[in-house]
Parts: sequence; C-alpha cells; structure tokens
Amino acid sequence: MSGNTLGKSFRVTNYGESHGPAIGAVIDGCPPGLELTEQDIQFELDRRRPGTSRHVTQRREPDQVEILSGIYEGRTTGTPISLLIRNSDARSKDYGNLLDTFRPGHADYTYWKKFENRDPRGGGRSSARLTAPTVAAGAIAKKWLAEHFGVKIRGYMSQLGPIEIPFKSWGVVEQNPFYAPDLDVVPQLEAYMDELRKEGESIGARIEVVAEGVPAGWGEPIYDRLDADIAHAMMGLNAVKGVSIGAGFDSITQKGSEHGDALYPDGFKTNQAGGVLGGISSGQAITVSLAIKPTASIRTMRPSINRAGEAVDVQTLGRHDPCVGIRATPIAEALLAIVLMDHCLRHRSQCGV
Amino acid sequence: MSGNTLGKSFRVTNYGESHGPAIGAVIDGCPPGLELTEQDIQFELDRRRPGTSRHVTQRREPDQVEILSGIYEGRTTGTPISLLIRNSDARSKDYGNLLDTFRPGHADYTYWKKFENRDPRGGGRSSARLTAPTVAAGAIAKKWLAEHFGVKIRGYMSQLGPIEIPFKSWGVVEQNPFYAPDLDVVPQLEAYMDELRKEGESIGARIEVVAEGVPAGWGEPIYDRLDADIAHAMMGLNAVKGVSIGAGFDSITQKGSEHGDALYPDGFKTNQAGGVLGGISSGQAITVSLAIKPTASIRTMRPSINRAGEAVDVQTLGRHDPCVGIRATPIAEALLAIVLMDHCLRHRSQCGV
Amino acid sequence: MSGNTLGKSFRVTNYGESHGPAIGAVIDGCPPGLELTEQDIQFELDRRRPGTSRHVTQRREPDQVEILSGIYEGRTTGTPISLLIRNSDARSKDYGNLLDTFRPGHADYTYWKKFENRDPRGGGRSSARLTAPTVAAGAIAKKWLAEHFGVKIRGYMSQLGPIEIPFKSWGVVEQNPFYAPDLDVVPQLEAYMDELRKEGESIGARIEVVAEGVPAGWGEPIYDRLDADIAHAMMGLNAVKGVSIGAGFDSITQKGSEHGDALYPDGFKTNQAGGVLGGISSGQAITVSLAIKPTASIRTMRPSINRAGEAVDVQTLGRHDPCVGIRATPIAEALLAIVLMDHCLRHRSQCGV
Amino acid sequence: MSGNTLGKSFRVTNYGESHGPAIGAVIDGCPPGLELTEQDIQFELDRRRPGTSRHVTQRREPDQVEILSGIYEGRTTGTPISLLIRNSDARSKDYGNLLDTFRPGHADYTYWKKFENRDPRGGGRSSARLTAPTVAAGAIAKKWLAEHFGVKIRGYMSQLGPIEIPFKSWGVVEQNPFYAPDLDVVPQLEAYMDELRKEGESIGARIEVVAEGVPAGWGEPIYDRLDADIAHAMMGLNAVKGVSIGAGFDSITQKGSEHGDALYPDGFKTNQAGGVLGGISSGQAITVSLAIKPTASIRTMRPSINRAGEAVDVQTLGRHDPCVGIRATPIAEALLAIVLMDHCLRHRSQCGV
Repeated sequence: MSGNTLGKSFRVTNYGESHGPAIGAVIDGCPPGLELTEQDIQFELDRRRPGTSRHVTQRREPDQVEILSGIYEGRTTGTPISLLIRNSDARSKDYGNLLDTFRPGHADYTYWKKFENRDPRGGGRSSARLTAPTVAAGAIAKKWLAEHFGVKIRGYMSQLGPIEIPFKSWGVVEQNPFYAPDLDVVPQLEAYMDELRKEGESIGARIEVVAEGVPAGWGEPIYDRLDADIAHAMMGLNAVKGVSIGAGFDSITQKGSEHGDALYPDGFKTNQAGGVLGGISSGQAITVSLAIKPTASIRTMRPSINRAGEAVDVQTLGRHDPCVGIRATPIAEALLAIVLMDHCLRHRSQCGV
Repeated sequence: MSGNTLGKSFRVTNYGESHGPAIGAVIDGCPPGLELTEQDIQFELDRRRPGTSRHVTQRREPDQVEILSGIYEGRTTGTPISLLIRNSDARSKDYGNLLDTFRPGHADYTYWKKFENRDPRGGGRSSARLTAPTVAAGAIAKKWLAEHFGVKIRGYMSQLGPIEIPFKSWGVVEQNPFYAPDLDVVPQLEAYMDELRKEGESIGARIEVVAEGVPAGWGEPIYDRLDADIAHAMMGLNAVKGVSIGAGFDSITQKGSEHGDALYPDGFKTNQAGGVLGGISSGQAITVSLAIKPTASIRTMRPSINRAGEAVDVQTLGRHDPCVGIRATPIAEALLAIVLMDHCLRHRSQCGV
Repeated sequence: MSGNTLGKSFRVTNYGESHGPAIGAVIDGCPPGLELTEQDIQFELDRRRPGTSRHVTQRREPDQVEILSGIYEGRTTGTPISLLIRNSDARSKDYGNLLDTFRPGHADYTYWKKFENRDPRGGGRSSARLTAPTVAAGAIAKKWLAEHFGVKIRGYMSQLGPIEIPFKSWGVVEQNPFYAPDLDVVPQLEAYMDELRKEGESIGARIEVVAEGVPAGWGEPIYDRLDADIAHAMMGLNAVKGVSIGAGFDSITQKGSEHGDALYPDGFKTNQAGGVLGGISSGQAITVSLAIKPTASIRTMRPSINRAGEAVDVQTLGRHDPCVGIRATPIAEALLAIVLMDHCLRHRSQCGV
Repeated sequence: MSGNTLGKSFRVTNYGESHGPAIGAVIDGCPPGLELTEQDIQFELDRRRPGTSRHVTQRREPDQVEILSGIYEGRTTGTPISLLIRNSDARSKDYGNLLDTFRPGHADYTYWKKFENRDPRGGGRSSARLTAPTVAAGAIAKKWLAEHFGVKIRGYMSQLGPIEIPFKSWGVVEQNPFYAPDLDVVPQLEAYMDELRKEGESIGARIEVVAEGVPAGWGEPIYDRLDADIAHAMMGLNAVKGVSIGAGFDSITQKGSEHGDALYPDGFKTNQAGGVLGGISSGQAITVSLAIKPTASIRTMRPSINRAGEAVDVQTLGRHDPCVGIRATPIAEALLAIVLMDHCLRHRSQCGV
C-alpha cells in the first residue's frame, strides 16, 4: 500500500514528480452541487507559487490548473475531480551532478534505500513542488466548508529563525511575502533573508493555522481523532518536524485548573484545548502550530557519500527557498481544510450535509 | 467510518468502555509463526496498569488479558488475534453526579455533541483505560520487531511540570514509577506529586520515545509518511497536545548547515532528523517527543454547564492520575511499535519478511 | 493487509477459529440510538445454528452471544460493538488424523501454502462456523435498516441438487429446516437428504435473497457499486461459486427491449435489473441468487496427498452438513443487510440518517 | 466515501466522464523497476477501442494514453503512475434530447436519485467508456504478473445471445472481432449481429476469463477472499449481471465426490474449484465466467418517464454496441489482472517480490 492518498471520505490522491510531465491530484468524495471553477483553485495555487518574491525559489512555474473531470455546467457532480498541472520549467541539468550522491537532510538517501529506482530530477517525488496538488485540493475543501458552515481557515508565520513575529492583524498577512501578521517586522525579515542568501544558508520557521466556525462534534473517539488526523496531515508536509494543538508544548508546565477550559452558558472563554476535546471538535477555533526545519538544499559545501558509500562533498546549486516556511502557510491551510472536510463527510448526519 | 482501527497492514481495532463488561482489541495482519503467549502481552499491560504506585489512580484493575484467537500451538497463525480484558473494578457511583454535566477539559461535551447517546460511566469510551488494548497490541508489535530486526523501543519521562529530568541511563527507567532516566530526581518528583494531590490539582509532562535498529527504507513518500503516521498515532493518545520528531521545535531557529545531518562512509554522526528523511526511515534512531496536558479530572471546583446549558459547578471525585504523563511512557512505546510494524508490513519486500 | 473486515462505513471485523476459545466480531460504524439487546442478535444466530434438524451437522453449539461494548442503557452509543461467542463443543480428535493431510475441496492445502502455520482443528479459520459472527453483525444491520427505512430482507432455497423448489409463499419458509418456500416439496427434500447421508455424499444448492424497501440512490458509480459489493460479500461466503443479480445468467439470451425495465409514472413493472442500475439502487427489490457447492467434507474415501506430497486416501469423519446450502439462507440475508447498511452510511445525506 | 478506487495494495483510482475533457486513472502501489512504456498500455487499449469493427459503436476515439508520472528512464519508480486519455470525439448533441428523460436499463434514473446533479453527455460517468482507464491499469498488472510469475491472463466469448461458441483454440481468439475461440462460428455471429442492428435491438453474452500460472497461496481467509474480490471487480463492470468461479452454477447439482478436486502427487487433475479454495489460490488456473446483459441503449422506442415523473417515449439515437459483451473480454482480463496483482502485493512475503 502506498501512502499517496489523504483522507477517507474526502480522498485526495496525489501524483507526479518535480520534473516529470505533470503533477496533479484526483479528489474523490466531494459532494455534488458545489460551484467550482479553475479560478477558485488557481487563486490558492498562486498563493503558494514560487517566484512571487525574491525570498523564494526563482523557478518560474505558472502552475496553471486544468479540471479534467467531476464538473458539469460549473458545479461538482459528486464524481472524482481530476486536477492537472503541467510542469513547464524543469532545468534538470541543475541536478545532474547529484544523480549519484545524497544531499544531507534530503530524501535522496532514504528514497534510494526504499525504491532503489528513483527520479533524481529536482528531488522527483520528494520535491516540495508536490504540495501544489495538495493546495489545489484544499481550495475545494476551503470553499465547500465556507459555503456550508462558514468555516474560515487562515494561517500566518509567527517566527522566522530567531525573529518572533507578534500577531497584530489578519488584515496584513496577505500584504507581505512572509505571511507575517505584522508589517513593521517585515523589513527585519527581508534583511535577515538577504543575509542568509549571501551565506548560502537556510533557516527554520514557525507557522500558525487557525480554523474558525467549525461546529462541535466533528472527529472520532480513538485513533482517528480530529487532532490526530490534523497531526498526520501536517507532519506529512515537507520539512515539518513538530505539530501542536492549542497550548501544545506549553501544556507540560500547566496545571489542570489552568489548562481545562471552563464552560459557561455563553460558551468557552479560553481555548487551551485548541478546539479539540477527546478527539472531537468543541466548536471553538481549531489552532495548530507547526515547526518547520531549514531547507536542506543549501549552497554551502557539505560532506556526504555517494551510492558506492564513498565520501564526497556536496553543494546544491539549484534554485531553492532559503526558508521553505515562507511558502508553508497556504499549504498548511489547505491540509487543515482537507482534514476538516474529510471529518465532516464521515459524519454527514452530524454536519447536516 | 469510525476511527477505531490503527494501522493499514498491521491493523488494531480497539473496542470497549471504561465501565462496560470488557475492553479489548482485534489485531489483523500479524504474520504467522510468531511465538506468542498471554504472558508476553501481560508484561506490557502490567507496566501501564493503574494502582502500581501512590502517584497514579488507585483504581484496582488486574487487566488480565485473554487471547481468544489467532494462536495455534503457541504461535501466531496469520489470522486475527483477538484480545479480551474484562473490566472488574467499576465504581460507577463515583460518576453518577456527572451524568448531566460536562467536566471542563473532558470529552463529555464533545461526545454529547457528536453522539448524543453517550456512556458517562468513567468517561465511557473516552477514558484513558482504552489505552490498555493499544498497549496489548503494541506488545505483539514490539516482540515481532525485536525478533525480526532487533528493533528496540524504549521511552522515558524528560519533564514533569516545571521539573526537567536529565537523561542519565536507560537502566534506571524501569526502577521508578515515573519512568525517569535519573533516580536522583525521583524524590523531587514524589514531593511535587504529593503537593499536587493535596491541592487537588494535576500537571502536564513531556515524554521521549526512541526506536533503535529500524532499517532504512520504511515509510512512504507523501501523506502517509512514517513521521506523519507516528504523529497521528501519538496525537491520538489521550492528553497529548504536541508531537515532534528529532530536533522538533528547535528546528525553527536552526540553520540548514546545522540541521542537515551529514552522511559519512561510516554513517551519520548527528540525528537532527530523528531518523526520518522525506517520510522514510534513515536507519538512525527514531526519536519522538510528546507534550502531555494535565489531567482534566481534578478535585478543584470548576465552573461548567449542564445539558440544559445552565451554569453549574463541577468537581471530579473519581480516582485519577494527577499526571497522566506518568503512565504514558509504555503507551507511547506501544504506539510507536504498532506504526513501525505497520510500515514494515506495507513494504515486506523491503523489510524482508 | 488481511481481509477480515467487511464494509467501509459499517465495518465488521471477524475473528476466531472453529475450535479455539471463541469466535466473534467487532462492528464499527453503527450509528448511536439503535435499541439493541443480545436477544435481537441471538434470534438470527439461532436460525443458522447447527443441530437444529437431522439434516445439518449434529455439532452442538449453543452459540450464545455476549455484547461486550457499544451499548448503554439498551441503545447503541456509536462506538464499536464487540460480540463474543464462546466455543463449547470442540471435538478436536475428529480431525486429528487430518493434521498432516489435505482434504479435497477444502482450504487445508491453500491455507498451508499461504500461512504454513495453520490451525487444523475443525478447519480452523476456514470453518463455516466463522459465519456465525457475520450473522450476528447482520442482525444489527437488519434491525437498523428495518427501523430507518422499512427494509425487509428475506431469503429461501430455490433448488437442492436436482430438486427445483417453486416459490409458493414467504410464510412457510421459516416452517421447515430447508428454508423452502413450498411445504409440499419438503418430504422429497428430506428423502433426498437421508439418501445422501447413507451414501456418505453431499450436494449443492441454490439460494435466493431479496431486499425490499431499499430507497433509490444507494451505491457508487464505479468499482464499489452496490451490486459489486453484494457480489463480493456473497462470493466471500463459504462454498459459494456463483452470484447473480436480477435476471443474472438469463441476461445472456435476452434482448435489450426485454431486459431493460421500462419506467412508468407509477414506477417499474418488471425487475430484470434486480434493483440495481449502474451500481446504484433503483428503489425496486434487490434480488440476488447464489450457487452453493456441495460440502467438501464427505465420508467417501478420496485420493489426496500429505504435506510430504505423498499419495494418501482421505475420509472425513467429523460431523458435517451434507448440504451447506441448507444453513446458507440466514447467512446470505446477513451479508446483504451488512452491504446495504454500509452503502447507506456511505451516503448519509442520501439515506437521511 | 466514493467507490472509484479498485484494490488495496495495488490501487487504481479512476476518473472522468464520457464527454468531459479527459478520462484516466492513477495507479498507486506498483513496485519499482518494471519496464513500462505508453506502447505497453496502448496495446491493451487498442484491443477494447470502439470503431474497430462494424459490430461495435462507430464512435471514433484514438484513446491515446499519456503517462504523466511514476516512470523514470523507462522504469516504474514505485510512485503513483498517472494515465491520461483525452476525449476527442464527443457528439453531445446525440444525447441532448435525453437530458430530461431516463433511458430504460440505464443509470440515468439512479444517478439522478443519488447525485441530483449529473452529467448526461454520453451517460457521463456511467458510460462504458470509463472502462478504458481500467484496461490501461490492467495492462500494467498483466505485464508485472507475467514478468514476475509467468502469469498468463486471457479471455474469450463463449456465448452470444442464443449462439453457444465452442472452445477450439486460443490461437484464433484475437483473429476475430468477437474474441470467439472458434473461427467457424464467426460468420453466424456476424449474421446475427447484422440482424440485430436492423431490428434496432441488442443482446447479451457470456465471457470466460482464465489466469494461468498463479502460484498457490494468494488470497485471504474471510471476506476479502481472492474469489470474492474477483466477483467484486467483475460485477463492477458495466452490464455484468452474474459472476461464477470454476463449476459455478453447475455446482448446484454436483455431489461432493464430483466437485471436490482430488489432489495427487503430481497435482490436481480436475478444476471444479476454478483455482480457488477457501478464498486462496490453489495453483490451478483461475477460471471466471461472466453474464453480460444486452446493451440498454437501443433504437427501439421504449416507454419511460421524465424528471417530472410524466410518461414519455424514449429512443436512443447515439452510437452504441448492440452487444457490449463483444468488447468485454479485454476489460475482464484487465480486472482479473488488477485483482491478482493486488492480492500478490498484499502478501509480498508469499509472492516473493
């Protein structure tokens, strides 16, 4: 069994390699009747697209999505929605010298161990480019959740390396390439990134994702809890090394009276739980936090080995994001949307669809 | 679809309520030929059993496991292994007064929202007692992985509330009720717990789980990555609010040259990745860290509401662990074992079984 | 992945061996609120129980079911329902002489090829006894479908070996051990069976199962069609060698104008389709026909081989049904109920639950 | 959950509508290392393609397949294989008049009941055209099974309406448009078809599919038996109303001594079981028989209703096969290949891959 499908009732099957003919996804389980155009999906794809600022990889990919099935007269029919994104800008030569060596921090070594036969061009299947089909599928889930439940899913960057970014307002998040909720800190972020690029280095980041308007009662008691499936989806995103819900790792030092959110006739007043209790949504905002590692591809020379196991020095010359975290926000939003829609559809009688 | 099954190739289906007739699990997918006795499973069940020290709930449950199927002449046959644990000590009266009210931080409210018809006795399905079948299933996975690959899965408590516990040695972990890797800190932990109990309070904790000896090549490229499935399993454990792999949240401030583990002809020398690259095992130790929230059940009086939505004050009088983290270590080990065995069986050609 | 679970949204996981400690099933996905007692299930179990007439195996099994979970105050809670049936009458010695040899027409040889380590006692996992948990699970589905949609699922024997049994009335089906819809033919059936027993022979049979009251719209377009899942469930029943829907094999010689059921303002007037069009229910009665092979266990001496591949003669001395078809009717009804409930729950918005 | 994926370990996800932009499939779970070109797949697609003789629909579709992913340097990489087939010849106008009415024997009525929003062009998702992606996926399974186990999968037509076709030789099957194993009967078949076309009628057929060289030990004990999954796949094929294995419906009148295939030191000498015992392959040829109903689309005027439930007369003017059975052979072969490969991969340790 291969793990290229996300979700059980809303199922996203992802395919493609970074430098192959195309990438895409087949979405099975979307209910009929949703108005859906390529523009709805393109909007989210453009948010994650490379080459949108000097701080992300300069690879130029239009990432134009084509809907191949599942739509009739502008509405979903309930049959599989097939989304196709052609690869246009594929400079394989950039990677030629890495065909035989393993880049530190990359999946080169583990893919070789697992598959033996791997596509090395641009990291092949392990490339962050494969998050595009996820974002495309998430766009459908986002729209459906918004229309049926008024669910609003948004994210922002709360930390870039050493720089913590205070939350000032949602309004400015889309106004800067970092998805920072505070414009005043942006110049500092840009200076830091320019410095990094000079060093040929990369850096980690922290992303927050929030879903508001999720009704109480979505999720499952054991194993496939709502928070468990959120953790699965987020940890499955390239470069994520940690996932937390609500108070997260701060819970370690909290006392029960502090952590347990009291209930009042007019609802909750705190949200340490992050919107999930016993694996089921509580009706509060679902708050997720992600730790993202620094990009593995750096221009700095690193010690490594080749397939023969001999010592070699490796340097990555391809175009890369010095901080993959910068483009992680729309992807994390998409993943949260997919998990929420999947859980809603598992409980249609609850979610009233 | 309900979420009571963990794993795809090694499938653990969990059933039961805290105060119903019995709890248990059916394990489907265990290969034939494994020597297995009830004692093998009982050993792990006893490690998580309540009433083993004054620091955990005094509920007395022998938790005797009975194997109902899947074994012939002391070996697994490859057919489903059904494990039964009868509930003996069920003081439902302790919970009677909570039938109509929702305990803050508990699943009472969300279960009611989802199922309407819920079993309130001891939290019913949401009780931590339901981790017993998980531990029983994990015992099988642990034994199988040890026999076939020499995989060794162990865990310990690295923090109890404000008290950080330095790692001194694996040898002492099983010699104290906290699974602390340092005996010198135990008196401090005991004093802290006694204090908490007086206050009628509870506290969070941090647990580390490590799997050594996992071959390179287990896992999947996208979505169902090894680390994603580990995050899913761990976040599905009661009270867990955060999961991280390797450097985890420290990756946020790391640079690429620091985080990316260099490869040498004699292997890796660092393990920032925590044994997983691109969702596939690298052959290094798999290191997982868990943030566990404080027990929701506390004797302190809390504001809440009843089913009618009216304000009420709630106080939990049942027997509870002031720190669920104390008993989390063997459960987290079991979950890691189940995920690893599941991934091995998805890739039998890789894992050579 | 092992195949011991039936259904996707209504999931029945079956465990146990014919002569092990117990057999049973865990049902995951039953909605909350259904009134359910052990008597509801016992009623269907008693219909398939051995030893109820001289024409079926004289093995005496009370087949008492115990509900271990998922029920609170007489109603389902939406959590897994665990059903336990202890094995009481297990005469392993009857089979001792077959430990090393393969019985023609049995699964002995193929289980050995697949698992190597097999439980030979009473056929172990391959025994028709393992249909009991299926019947128990089906009893839940039958009751739920009847209460929510007035679905009525019934079956009867339409042929026993050479003897065709005309359909006279549903009323008499439960009044004879053959589930024959015509009492006049029963003496002939009894005489034929007595003759067979003298010969030490066995015979095949044909069973019809009908579900009335299924709303239009249940099923799926491709692959997991309603009729495909019915075929899967039925062909998965021991001894079934053929499954057909509606006109079945008679469709081969039909013309389009004859087979295609015309629609009229007051509904359909014919049902060549057997209630399924394009994999989705049409609102007509769902009609299924099963071909059941003769019992493999016969007292007649047969040529076979042993594990060493040497020629041996085999004779089965255990207690067996000369016609497994006689007890197949309640099992086929249960399977149809499980498939229908599973498909309803996959489409809650359609089925209105 | 939607049912557009076939298989568990070798997973084929099918998408598309008859007259939409494209149809295709994503195959997940194909092991790495298989040499695969578009020509390998095109060969099987061409066998089922319409317009290849005057006896099948004259719709002209080149059905050119494009491989979008999963291949590197001519070999599979173990990642998803995405197959794309553009729709070129789509005469929607032929169906315009049927937008509001339901064609007898078609899925129009049930799709409308299930989805409400349906694509009526050419039957949309319910068109037999959607078997093309299945055939493409089956081509991969066929090649893989042949290379690894020498499995040979072939089929033929054994009956066309009233005309039974004796099996003379495999050699001639590909030499006539009916996949008849006897050339002498072909003129009779052609005359019969020409007659049918004049009448504006359609007819049913019977197809046999055989897999030789399947090792013993593939399959599962309960529910997901090899024969159960074969029945599921075959009954999921458009127009199939009956599926049988081995002796099939003839088993009804067989005695145990006749049906049970005796084992000899040099193997079996009969194959009443059709290669499956207890749901697991026996090493003999797997023999499957299909009953295919007459095409629902006929030019004869039929009574029906429209969406308003009013009586209307319907006549289908589109291009159709008067006997869908004629093109069913390569599709049935593909389905058998997919099921066999799926079961092999579920048991890699058994199948040695």
